[in-house]
Amino acid sequence: MNILDTIYQHRSIRKFSDKPVDDQILEKILNAGFRGSTTGNMQVYSIIVNRDKKKLEAILPFHFGQKMVVEAPVFLTFNADFNRFNTWCEQRNATPGYDNLLSFLTAAIDAIIAAQNVAVAAEALGLGICYLGTTLYNADKLIEFYEMPKGVVPITSIAIGYPLEIPELVDRLPANGIVHYEKYHQYSSTEIDAIYNEKENLETTLKLINENGTENLAQIFTQKRYTKETNVEFSKRILAVLEKQGFMNHQL
Amino acid sequence: MNILDTIYQHRSIRKFSDKPVDDQILEKILNAGFRGSTTGNMQVYSIIVNRDKKKLEAILPFHFGQKMVVEAPVFLTFNADFNRFNTWCEQRNATPGYDNLLSFLTAAIDAIIAAQNVAVAAEALGLGICYLGTTLYNADKLIEFYEMPKGVVPITSIAIGYPLEIPELVDRLPANGIVHYEKYHQYSSTEIDAIYNEKENLETTLKLINENGTENLAQIFTQKRYTKETNVEFSKRILAVLEKQGFMNHQL
Repeated sequence: MNILDTIYQHRSIRKFSDKPVDDQILEKILNAGFRGSTTGNMQVYSIIVNRDKKKLEAILPFHFGQKMVVEAPVFLTFNADFNRFNTWCEQRNATPGYDNLLSFLTAAIDAIIAAQNVAVAAEALGLGICYLGTTLYNADKLIEFYEMPKGVVPITSIAIGYPLEIPELVDRLPANGIVHYEKYHQYSSTEIDAIYNEKENLETTLKLINENGTENLAQIFTQKRYTKETNVEFSKRILAVLEKQGFMNHQL
Repeated sequence: MNILDTIYQHRSIRKFSDKPVDDQILEKILNAGFRGSTTGNMQVYSIIVNRDKKKLEAILPFHFGQKMVVEAPVFLTFNADFNRFNTWCEQRNATPGYDNLLSFLTAAIDAIIAAQNVAVAAEALGLGICYLGTTLYNADKLIEFYEMPKGVVPITSIAIGYPLEIPELVDRLPANGIVHYEKYHQYSSTEIDAIYNEKENLETTLKLINENGTENLAQIFTQKRYTKETNVEFSKRILAVLEKQGFMNHQL
């Protein structure tokens, strides 16, 4: 399969076979992560590899019990990481000034670029992957569990393994819902209707609305999946994490 | 070239030929972005396509005059974007609760995953790419220029075109500088020395130290390239952007 088809055929895999991922395969995948673009070639990210089932059982609650965490043969967590860089600077009589929001975001971008290279490489090798957004939600607990020092914040995780099933490709919005030419184009209500028309009329959507007892798909997001209450609670915890890990000192 | 080689052969391209990028090629590349993983399939990101040289001349100062901005035939800016999603929710009698830090980071992750898919797809099609970190630095100015509404923050940009030159592959740290097994491993000073040994002794590094008149490579980062003063200034501006674009309301 060529590279574009690999990317076009991406679907999240949540059920994995027992087949382990060889060390050589893992190395190939991680090497893909290392080659990703990185600000100033600082490589201000790190990757935690989990394969020990006991460790994965321990972090399962932090990922809200999503079974793929323990069922995947390889579980990777990508961190914004200035710790190694700062340690190096201090050892070289250089005073690091990376305890601020810009540095955090720079490191988070590094981490996510590496993660997506890893994801594409894994899929190219016949593996399936699924991202977990829960990493950011429970960053405080993961920091404690992994014993991460200041300068490190876990950003995202990927479960990796051989797929036990290949689900249908999920829908995406039409290009004009995503792409703007030359300047940002604010949508009219007619345009919003057109962009969401196909998604709102999928059989899977209509079934979901019925199951959730909401008026429409948008309410499933706002009332069930990603509620304001939950978002506010986790936003406060994430800000506390940024402060604790030393990334909000530009305010001092 | 297979997909792994494409990824392994990545180098940032900063000089582009005059050859334009066909609309069909651009469509293929953007489609790769759309297929990236996205939290809850919300696709809370957007992409601005710039090809008009006048527009690119206008944003050039916001990218600190880096010539590739105007020399690349295609310049893409990837935004964390809850605007379209929020507009849709409001139009569907659903109250969006996405004016907080978690939502911003969720949207930023979406944007970067899409960006990296675009980068890999472009390279697979023989194009060269270069990320620009300046997008985040001058997000406030870009928001004004592009007329971005609340809920939108530009995160990163990619210059794309046919390479005029293929530079050497740049160095990367050895794997044990990036990967941790099962738990986070804090480095000893001997380990730090070993991890940075190759990088510090490259001919290009020694030349750079000489040019900069610093004691070592680490000081080039802390004293010249990414100074505390600059980081603090831009961190303050980025936090102000998050507040203005409505992503810090969890504190209210």
